[in-house]
Amino acid sequence: MNHADIIGILAAVLTTCSFLPQAVKVVRTRETAAISLAMYSMFTAGVTLWLVFGLITRQWTIAVANGVTLVFAVTILVIKLGEGRRSSR
Amino acid sequence: MNHADIIGILAAVLTTCSFLPQAVKVVRTRETAAISLAMYSMFTAGVTLWLVFGLITRQWTIAVANGVTLVFAVTILVIKLGEGRRSSR
Repeated sequence: MNHADIIGILAAVLTTCSFLPQAVKVVRTRETAAISLAMYSMFTAGVTLWLVFGLITRQWTIAVANGVTLVFAVTILVIKLGEGRRSSR
Repeated sequence: MNHADIIGILAAVLTTCSFLPQAVKVVRTRETAAISLAMYSMFTAGVTLWLVFGLITRQWTIAVANGVTLVFAVTILVIKLGEGRRSSR
């Protein structure tokens, strides 16, 4: 494993795990006023494509990291969409 | 350019651009209650490492996408940290 591999794995762990506290916060508080619907719509689509990219190119770090991130992103997006049904703001 | 390249570029454009509406929303409203400080601390560190990974491995799609994302992430993080100074919540 070279330096680039180690940096890539550390980067993947950090960016992937970063969405866990955001998902937990949104699940617990149901507070999503500051969360951008446009962001999570685009982000969820993009992460889905990164997952496909990782699978196609057999770059498993990219595939696994984005598969996990997708779960967190969808969680946040669904709760944000739920807020939209309760309030038109 | 093969299918994987096109999917990778589309994925990079979506995940990178997704942080723009979130950054704009936070800059305009200064509302960051629902934004997770833990997320943006870890995410900013991770995106910085992805940028380094892209540069080292000469994968310019990864380098450019994460360079741009870093600007948006730092913007959100700085405003979130500013909220912390105004309120201890």
